[in-house]
Amino acid sequence: MTTVTARERLLNAAVEAFAEKGFAATTTRDIASRAGMSPAAVYVHHNSKESLLFTVSLDGHRKALDVITTAAASSTDPVDRLRTMVYEFSLWHADNSRVGRIVQYEYHALSPEHRAEVAVFRRSIEKTMQDALADGVDQGVLEADDVPGTAFSLLSLGVDLVRWFRPGGSRSSHELAELHAKLAVRMTART
Amino acid sequence: MTTVTARERLLNAAVEAFAEKGFAATTTRDIASRAGMSPAAVYVHHNSKESLLFTVSLDGHRKALDVITTAAASSTDPVDRLRTMVYEFSLWHADNSRVGRIVQYEYHALSPEHRAEVAVFRRSIEKTMQDALADGVDQGVLEADDVPGTAFSLLSLGVDLVRWFRPGGSRSSHELAELHAKLAVRMTART
Repeated sequence: MTTVTARERLLNAAVEAFAEKGFAATTTRDIASRAGMSPAAVYVHHNSKESLLFTVSLDGHRKALDVITTAAASSTDPVDRLRTMVYEFSLWHADNSRVGRIVQYEYHALSPEHRAEVAVFRRSIEKTMQDALADGVDQGVLEADDVPGTAFSLLSLGVDLVRWFRPGGSRSSHELAELHAKLAVRMTART
Repeated sequence: MTTVTARERLLNAAVEAFAEKGFAATTTRDIASRAGMSPAAVYVHHNSKESLLFTVSLDGHRKALDVITTAAASSTDPVDRLRTMVYEFSLWHADNSRVGRIVQYEYHALSPEHRAEVAVFRRSIEKTMQDALADGVDQGVLEADDVPGTAFSLLSLGVDLVRWFRPGGSRSSHELAELHAKLAVRMTART
């Protein structure tokens, strides 16, 4: 239990520091002090600042994949399923926009090997959306001439939220997720 | 004429260096050498690396605003106009994805004052899309319960291209722009 708590404290401290100063300007010492640890204790878990960024990024991608996979399994009706997938994916990005910004903006700071590992999760997310679309097209309920391109566009609605969404603004994350879900159905439902 | 050429050579060198190494890891010396100038010559134009990033960012935002404003004036028919605006905005982002990535990913590296200047352009871009949508709704041709939210979603299709679009991939920038324009009409045309 202690290990889990220390790990989470460390990741939260890393997210806070990266969000505030950017990855390049953050020091391991800074993360350690925010987590209430010694720099030596940080190195027990992570041998570099890049390894912390990788953990934050992998964690974020894992959760986003989990969210969309769970939503994909929520219904066999293609329209309902698509609505739920876009709703949950956009909601997650709005509710995690700070982590999302770090993950997107510091992607190039990852080592090539780590970037390749994260890319596997990205492709799984895309594939999940593509499969749901293709199944709806097969069932004659959805329309998409370009399934991969349309899947990307549906995901873009959510991903791009991290660029500008801030909690406490004029719209709640639920309202935005609902709007995206409605737009997604308009984009793809057979007319 | 010499000044313009030097300025452009410098900006191109900055874009190349930032794209390759990230803003933080790039040195003024590196930019100078890519531009075939001495570091001292760089300082004649820009007193800091941040000032170069600001110029790249402002330039990019200026062009994106110009693209969408020109498209907004291309037709008085709300559907045609929206189609053209989304087409041109997405095309620009696909064709300028390298600059777009720098502009988005290094936004936090700008000084607060410079960020505020760039934000004025962002708001103008959003306003242009909102106005076109609102006019189409007024004319009874377009449908949008949430005009600002829908405008953001239409822009997100283009902006998010910079995250993943690379020239020479399986789809041309024109094909993607065409797909986005079609999806935009589906998202907003009165049914």
